[in-house]
Amino acid sequence: MNHSICLDVGGTKIRGALFQGNKIQPINLQKISTQQNGQNVEERICDLISSIWPKNGSVDGIALAAPGFVDSENGMVIRAVNIPGWEYLALKNILEEKFNHPVFIENDARLAALGEYKFGAGIGHHDLIYLTISTGIGGGVIIKNRLLTGSRGMATEIGHTTILPDGPLCSCGQKGHLEAIASGTAIARFVQDQINKGKNSSLSQVENFSSKEVAQAAMAGDEVCQSAFHQAGTYLGKSIANLLHVFNPSCLIFGGGVSLSGDLLFDPMRKELEKTIISKEYLKNLSIAMAKLGDNAGLIGGLVLIESKR
Amino acid sequence: MNHSICLDVGGTKIRGALFQGNKIQPINLQKISTQQNGQNVEERICDLISSIWPKNGSVDGIALAAPGFVDSENGMVIRAVNIPGWEYLALKNILEEKFNHPVFIENDARLAALGEYKFGAGIGHHDLIYLTISTGIGGGVIIKNRLLTGSRGMATEIGHTTILPDGPLCSCGQKGHLEAIASGTAIARFVQDQINKGKNSSLSQVENFSSKEVAQAAMAGDEVCQSAFHQAGTYLGKSIANLLHVFNPSCLIFGGGVSLSGDLLFDPMRKELEKTIISKEYLKNLSIAMAKLGDNAGLIGGLVLIESKR
Repeated sequence: MNHSICLDVGGTKIRGALFQGNKIQPINLQKISTQQNGQNVEERICDLISSIWPKNGSVDGIALAAPGFVDSENGMVIRAVNIPGWEYLALKNILEEKFNHPVFIENDARLAALGEYKFGAGIGHHDLIYLTISTGIGGGVIIKNRLLTGSRGMATEIGHTTILPDGPLCSCGQKGHLEAIASGTAIARFVQDQINKGKNSSLSQVENFSSKEVAQAAMAGDEVCQSAFHQAGTYLGKSIANLLHVFNPSCLIFGGGVSLSGDLLFDPMRKELEKTIISKEYLKNLSIAMAKLGDNAGLIGGLVLIESKR
Repeated sequence: MNHSICLDVGGTKIRGALFQGNKIQPINLQKISTQQNGQNVEERICDLISSIWPKNGSVDGIALAAPGFVDSENGMVIRAVNIPGWEYLALKNILEEKFNHPVFIENDARLAALGEYKFGAGIGHHDLIYLTISTGIGGGVIIKNRLLTGSRGMATEIGHTTILPDGPLCSCGQKGHLEAIASGTAIARFVQDQINKGKNSSLSQVENFSSKEVAQAAMAGDEVCQSAFHQAGTYLGKSIANLLHVFNPSCLIFGGGVSLSGDLLFDPMRKELEKTIISKEYLKNLSIAMAKLGDNAGLIGGLVLIESKR
């Protein structure tokens, strides 16, 4: 029986799954912390792969979802902000030398897009955009049933597109990116800035609150917290209008923790989208859906990628 | 011998070409005005097609480049701003009923992209972006050797992406689109606005000047005219950074009259692009080129489209 080994590397956790055939329920799923004293992340990844390697049957390939800028053509992590030392890391070479099996490195959001397209909220669609909104904003695009990767595998860095020149500072150092306005980090920072300016909020006395707490306070009537989501949703709507004008997809999928805020985020998003779309034709037959595969989307996307290369 | 008939419909002129085989030099090229009293544009198109129909040999298909929003999947012009009455026009049906041959309707900029990809400045590239900057801004994108059309054929309306929220008014009625800041129309309007505000310019006494005259004045040292190109080039640079982050192409092609302004436009564009790109990796191996096929790009793109459908 054929197996696939898929890993999803995050800033705090690495998840590894062993799949059998094309069944999306892993037959083994392990989670370890990304950092541990005295061991580098690559070693920890190798240990995890070894630990889930099947006792019987063959392995078709190993797919790894990495955060940040990934050159998937060459299997290289160019920069992963949350993993110290991951710069120009030839991860594909390292793992292929060690395991002597084909290895595929992809950006985590792009792999999640591939998973949702094939087995999740995108089933039946040929052209879709997947956006994951959590601490950052990532994205993946399917065009006529194929993942958009770009000439060197660095496409769909949708979080890092400018939507408000000279706007808030982004994690990447640029200004006014979508991620700097509509991510969870940006939403919490907006509220903190308002509090610092003397605005009244129920979170005034809370330290290091998250966008989840902002959402709860907004739902309880906190106006500063409501305005944070209004701002985020509005610019999300502008960005989505741009994406529809550029890609004209039939499906738009939202994943990530912040997208669970529901109407707080999506009401202003929808209003702005309807206001800024250049033709209602872009919204006809457009399905807007929530991601279905949860935390496993990237792992399942890895399975899809390995299957497509077989 | 196989023939292809290709038309490029503009606001003032319709150009029709008869191609033989896959030779990009037309064996017959006719030009007529788009509007004439007592005749609608569709009738004029039919007359032009009939006039260049080959006396001997077969016709593989008819391709028509239309301005504005085109639903190429269904062969429908949704809206062509410069051609009165062209709204939800089922042009493919009209022409197929009349000529009983396969008809393909595409957006003019997308067809020009296809032409440049196959026979022009994009030869050898698999992933490219073509931008035409003239009175408006249009675009076409090739991904892994295929034209990006979108689920309903309305993709790559790059001129109509917001880069400066609440910025200048666009021809489409929205604000802050790239076209509203960096097109020829926008450049001339910027200068006129500055003159109206009392700024000193050599064009102060000129009525209805074009971006070409702005370019000439800028090269002669007119500071207001220089600032118009600086503004246009800067926002063009921001938009191109966004496009590189989204598509990661290996080639960027500029067409259209305004792109002939050279460094006036491209110096500030390059500076802003280098400033706002999130990783220099996007610029490595990126070829930036001027379009090579001139006015024939759309017609030749039609030939490529017909050949691809054979």
